[in-house]
Amino acid sequence: MAVLGPNRYGKAETRVVRVTRHGDAHRIKDLTVSTALSGDMTEVHLSGDNSAVLPTDTQKNTVFAFAKKHGVGAIEDFALLLARHFTDARPAIHHARVAIEEHAWERNGAFGHSFVRSGREVRTCVAHHDGTRSWVVSGLRDLVVLNTTNSEFWGFAKDEYTTLPETRDRVLATAVEAAWRHDEPPQDWDKSYENARGALLAAFADTYSLSLQQTLYAMGTRVLAECPEVCEVRLSLPNKHHFPVDLAPFGLDNDGEVFFAADRPYGLIEGTVLREDAPEPGPAWE
Amino acid sequence: MAVLGPNRYGKAETRVVRVTRHGDAHRIKDLTVSTALSGDMTEVHLSGDNSAVLPTDTQKNTVFAFAKKHGVGAIEDFALLLARHFTDARPAIHHARVAIEEHAWERNGAFGHSFVRSGREVRTCVAHHDGTRSWVVSGLRDLVVLNTTNSEFWGFAKDEYTTLPETRDRVLATAVEAAWRHDEPPQDWDKSYENARGALLAAFADTYSLSLQQTLYAMGTRVLAECPEVCEVRLSLPNKHHFPVDLAPFGLDNDGEVFFAADRPYGLIEGTVLREDAPEPGPAWE
Amino acid sequence: MAVLGPNRYGKAETRVVRVTRHGDAHRIKDLTVSTALSGDMTEVHLSGDNSAVLPTDTQKNTVFAFAKKHGVGAIEDFALLLARHFTDARPAIHHARVAIEEHAWERNGAFGHSFVRSGREVRTCVAHHDGTRSWVVSGLRDLVVLNTTNSEFWGFAKDEYTTLPETRDRVLATAVEAAWRHDEPPQDWDKSYENARGALLAAFADTYSLSLQQTLYAMGTRVLAECPEVCEVRLSLPNKHHFPVDLAPFGLDNDGEVFFAADRPYGLIEGTVLREDAPEPGPAWE
Amino acid sequence: MAVLGPNRYGKAETRVVRVTRHGDAHRIKDLTVSTALSGDMTEVHLSGDNSAVLPTDTQKNTVFAFAKKHGVGAIEDFALLLARHFTDARPAIHHARVAIEEHAWERNGAFGHSFVRSGREVRTCVAHHDGTRSWVVSGLRDLVVLNTTNSEFWGFAKDEYTTLPETRDRVLATAVEAAWRHDEPPQDWDKSYENARGALLAAFADTYSLSLQQTLYAMGTRVLAECPEVCEVRLSLPNKHHFPVDLAPFGLDNDGEVFFAADRPYGLIEGTVLREDAPEPGPAWE
Repeated sequence: MAVLGPNRYGKAETRVVRVTRHGDAHRIKDLTVSTALSGDMTEVHLSGDNSAVLPTDTQKNTVFAFAKKHGVGAIEDFALLLARHFTDARPAIHHARVAIEEHAWERNGAFGHSFVRSGREVRTCVAHHDGTRSWVVSGLRDLVVLNTTNSEFWGFAKDEYTTLPETRDRVLATAVEAAWRHDEPPQDWDKSYENARGALLAAFADTYSLSLQQTLYAMGTRVLAECPEVCEVRLSLPNKHHFPVDLAPFGLDNDGEVFFAADRPYGLIEGTVLREDAPEPGPAWE
Repeated sequence: MAVLGPNRYGKAETRVVRVTRHGDAHRIKDLTVSTALSGDMTEVHLSGDNSAVLPTDTQKNTVFAFAKKHGVGAIEDFALLLARHFTDARPAIHHARVAIEEHAWERNGAFGHSFVRSGREVRTCVAHHDGTRSWVVSGLRDLVVLNTTNSEFWGFAKDEYTTLPETRDRVLATAVEAAWRHDEPPQDWDKSYENARGALLAAFADTYSLSLQQTLYAMGTRVLAECPEVCEVRLSLPNKHHFPVDLAPFGLDNDGEVFFAADRPYGLIEGTVLREDAPEPGPAWE
Repeated sequence: MAVLGPNRYGKAETRVVRVTRHGDAHRIKDLTVSTALSGDMTEVHLSGDNSAVLPTDTQKNTVFAFAKKHGVGAIEDFALLLARHFTDARPAIHHARVAIEEHAWERNGAFGHSFVRSGREVRTCVAHHDGTRSWVVSGLRDLVVLNTTNSEFWGFAKDEYTTLPETRDRVLATAVEAAWRHDEPPQDWDKSYENARGALLAAFADTYSLSLQQTLYAMGTRVLAECPEVCEVRLSLPNKHHFPVDLAPFGLDNDGEVFFAADRPYGLIEGTVLREDAPEPGPAWE
Repeated sequence: MAVLGPNRYGKAETRVVRVTRHGDAHRIKDLTVSTALSGDMTEVHLSGDNSAVLPTDTQKNTVFAFAKKHGVGAIEDFALLLARHFTDARPAIHHARVAIEEHAWERNGAFGHSFVRSGREVRTCVAHHDGTRSWVVSGLRDLVVLNTTNSEFWGFAKDEYTTLPETRDRVLATAVEAAWRHDEPPQDWDKSYENARGALLAAFADTYSLSLQQTLYAMGTRVLAECPEVCEVRLSLPNKHHFPVDLAPFGLDNDGEVFFAADRPYGLIEGTVLREDAPEPGPAWE
């Protein structure tokens, strides 16, 4: 006998740009918003009765309308606003998940109306609301960092398939994907974000690394240390291998100077660092 | 006080092609293999002591060596073989996750040595092994399907942000991503795969659809009906919107003839269908 | 003194799907259409006077309207129809270039209204019209082919940077991008396409290859031999390297059985084969 | 009778990272290098005789070895060095084309060994050498810019397929792809690059735009004005449409505040600005 299990539906990747015009100095917020709702959805799956279904098109419209009515400040606030709206407005909707990505722009010179897209990382958040409680995870992706030294890798386990030589000096590079869960909302989401980002960057730089796992753990603990409002950090760090090129056949040495940046395969190190007393996450990571 | 939470590490996206030469009729298997191990990994995170760490480079080597030694049949078998090896070989490794994607090829004419890549969907699997028990999820992604009719969408909830008109005839298109969990291993993974794939395609085609959720549920139940070894199906169906173009300004009608295929945003319908008596999934979906 | 040089403008990548409903057996054509116009465009560049500019939005509308009015048969015919329209309709437009990509679909089972996207190559064409004359180039991309044997590479030039060993048996794989110019329009574009595609596939398979250049030339000449209406073929063949994995450290040999499919870098072989008496190409390749 | 037409071959997308260690303040150059050679290549195409073919693998090795021996300064210098080497070293090679992309990094804080990838545009160059003469084109891609105002579009040609309303205020956004040809080499390629980039950004910002063509022409002339060593500029500007969302159904106005950033289709404006006395380009743009 088949039954319906967990399900959700929504509009993914609504691309909204909000312009604010205060005199000559405009501001822009450039977001990709994905909403997902769940609740009393058995009938729509079993019989196609859509009476509980707020169309995904309506969800998209709501994103645009709210950008106008409420403006867009920190993405966490905008995500919460939307999540609360969907659960409050429709009794059949018991749970809303709103994920937002923010694409950064910088001013183009001194012009108040002209902008250049920053190549900085993408800032992310996911907000959940169940009608009563809220959960927010903030994060980033595509923060690409590289250390030219202060990284070793040796003393590892070896078996019959191990050929990797040990190294006392290597390039360490990764594209940081990180997300952090808040015990309680910070006073200022933007400041909290910059603190967490700064902690990740600093820990990557100043950790003398014997393995990427060690660096990951240092990055997570640094965020916890710098951001008291954060109770858990999850990191996914691809090891973007930079292999030293063997130049011996050409009569050249290669003392950490010339590297081949490989695409695939890549190491992938995933880990969590959390406070001992972190509360249960509930649906925060879903 | 910061503590280490769940973590794993491995080599992602090892691209291995295995050729088998029986006389003139060669065979190829083209895989992307990702391995992830976990176990006694506290020390490597805290101090950088790598003694429990089997390098990701070794994991990659193992994939290649096993492709030679054991050949590659069904990807589920190959994934299980690898997962068992990693947990059996290293006491510090308590759990292995092996994910494989298979890229299909067809013969190029009557030539035994020449192949054309099929554009069929990508076949996928994820196998877990914890030293004692195994879990296998099979699946596919990028199975792009479209119905030109037999799809309606009306009777949905409306609020102040609803502008979508109801429709009694629309194009329904999606890129199926599906995964199914096995109660027990089928006798023949390849046959089971073809059965599940066939069930998905048939249910998509012959379900008169009042909503994509209804189609999703029909696809899931069809897999359960056709594959007794399957106990749970998870589906992620982007609604690849095909909007009818308004040709009225040009004095033309458009009776389901000309559509604009939109990129973003898109609806995203996610759901699970499972047997009432499906056993606990354990780590199967992780 | 700055002057305006060659220029063109248009709407790129209009995604149009045309459905034809003859009884229960529907047909779909799925195209990506890019138009580019040029002509008396000095003023718009110098002063922003748009009086000669037919908006790119109008070009997009025209694609949709023509799909309705004229239907969509062979993409070459549809491209020519559009190119002629733009030059005929607007005196300021002296030249139109229309590029179309066609994405193939197959029937989903016996259902007349249900389709599965074929993973076959993308069919392409570019049509030019200057008000009087037309030029058409047909082609394809992403036709991925692989030979497991019948490929050697040796006897090449060597210098102080050469380390590649010679080989008498290797995997040869490429993603064919090809375009062919027509001396005069074939009677049936679709049949001509299948002939050219078949010639490319057959020549790839049955050429015993001493270099990818040799294979390229064989593929080009085969198209010319099979398609009398074609006077020139241009091919771009990435050498999708499949490197044999060194299994010796594991006590295993590797007699053409296990390969690593590399992403980058890749060889890239580009070449042209044409009839001695091929007419001047004019703007055909632009 | 089939004959061989224009052809070239090489190694595409060699990913080389060059680290320079002067005390604690390291430097990195991160390049993607593509080489393409042509010359006496008839035999390899006709018979597979590779005696004139310097393997693409050797070309890759040369890139790595030269990065060590000569270091990497401006990419134009490195490209020329490689192009000259290939034509000088092998009599059968008559022409070399070397294309380089540079991926920018910034320092990660005050650490001399730690870097963050800048999201700035990608800097590009293409150098040609025929044994005697050289040609260099410099450029960039993915410089994404947006003006929130100072852009109009009206007074355009209209036909029966025109529905676009005129506008006196719109968002104008594009991802600049530009390349500029040098009359003679500048004294300092890096400085020349920054001048050209600055000219593009400034002209985009301070041009009150009546059409994207006008902006394009202004950007090209600005580069010519600021960079006396440049004789020709080619620009490809996708019109990244930001459509104002119709909020009237929700009782809201939208005075240039909320936009939908569309993916496809997009306008594409391509044009050239050159000095009246610009010399013949030869193979520079190939």
